[in-house]
Amino acid sequence: MKDLLQELQETFFTEIPITQHIGISVASYDNRCLTLSAPLERNINHQRTAFAGSLNALVTLAGWGMLWIILKELGMTAVIVIQDSSSNYLRPVTGDFAASCYKPDQGQLAKLKNMLKKKGVARLELRAEIRQGQDVAVAFKGRYVVYLKRQEDEGDEELFHNHSI
Amino acid sequence: MKDLLQELQETFFTEIPITQHIGISVASYDNRCLTLSAPLERNINHQRTAFAGSLNALVTLAGWGMLWIILKELGMTAVIVIQDSSSNYLRPVTGDFAASCYKPDQGQLAKLKNMLKKKGVARLELRAEIRQGQDVAVAFKGRYVVYLKRQEDEGDEELFHNHSI
Repeated sequence: MKDLLQELQETFFTEIPITQHIGISVASYDNRCLTLSAPLERNINHQRTAFAGSLNALVTLAGWGMLWIILKELGMTAVIVIQDSSSNYLRPVTGDFAASCYKPDQGQLAKLKNMLKKKGVARLELRAEIRQGQDVAVAFKGRYVVYLKRQEDEGDEELFHNHSI
Repeated sequence: MKDLLQELQETFFTEIPITQHIGISVASYDNRCLTLSAPLERNINHQRTAFAGSLNALVTLAGWGMLWIILKELGMTAVIVIQDSSSNYLRPVTGDFAASCYKPDQGQLAKLKNMLKKKGVARLELRAEIRQGQDVAVAFKGRYVVYLKRQEDEGDEELFHNHSI
């Protein structure tokens, strides 16, 4: 498990270098929930709370990281991109913060696997949140697209207009 | 005008230091549209396109910056926070990028001013976008809350649970 988290951490830092400046850290994964964390200090705003852009980056990557882990567990290599997302900023975040993304249920995971095998592409909606004590401070919903690398040659034009994370 | 843009640029860099790492630059304002830009290189991802988190940060700040300018033009000092937002990532961004936010119409601006004067607080929905050539690559909609600083003492509990940008 430690290796998996270390590999995800290295993936973030190597492939999305701005994550180093945000100070994103892969905190934990227990087969059910992935948690990423970041320090307030590097992400502070004019109100001495966490900048919405940094909060959004962390929840977006929590969803992306969860899919990255799911694909590892399925033994599949695929590209993960985000299609759309919404964030509700419910409370200010006044300290170091962590974003948690819960794994979809077995039915959704089976559907994801089947779609990838049949079509080479699948879509999945994930939710993530940042808590401030007991309360949800940021509620995030993101729709991700996963596609097998070979699919790139097969010309789903609309799909490949989607933005990579 | 140059001073205004310079002041907004300094506000970003001083009050939200992560904007320096993203490389956010206040590019232009023509009384109608505010444009912020950022380089691809600092915000690159595993697909060699712009990271969704950086794109989201730029559109979020384009909306915030537009409100900051509007308040300057109204001669009012207020705090601007974001309440919720949605982003559609329609196309990958493969070069340096810019986010534009258009000013609301006169009717909406008059309403904003009246609400601030009467209630000390107002909400406004803004749209911003990032284009890749002629096409919209990122479409953003954000709801912002603006409140006069005195309001802080007057106990609108729900409002002050909203996250600052």
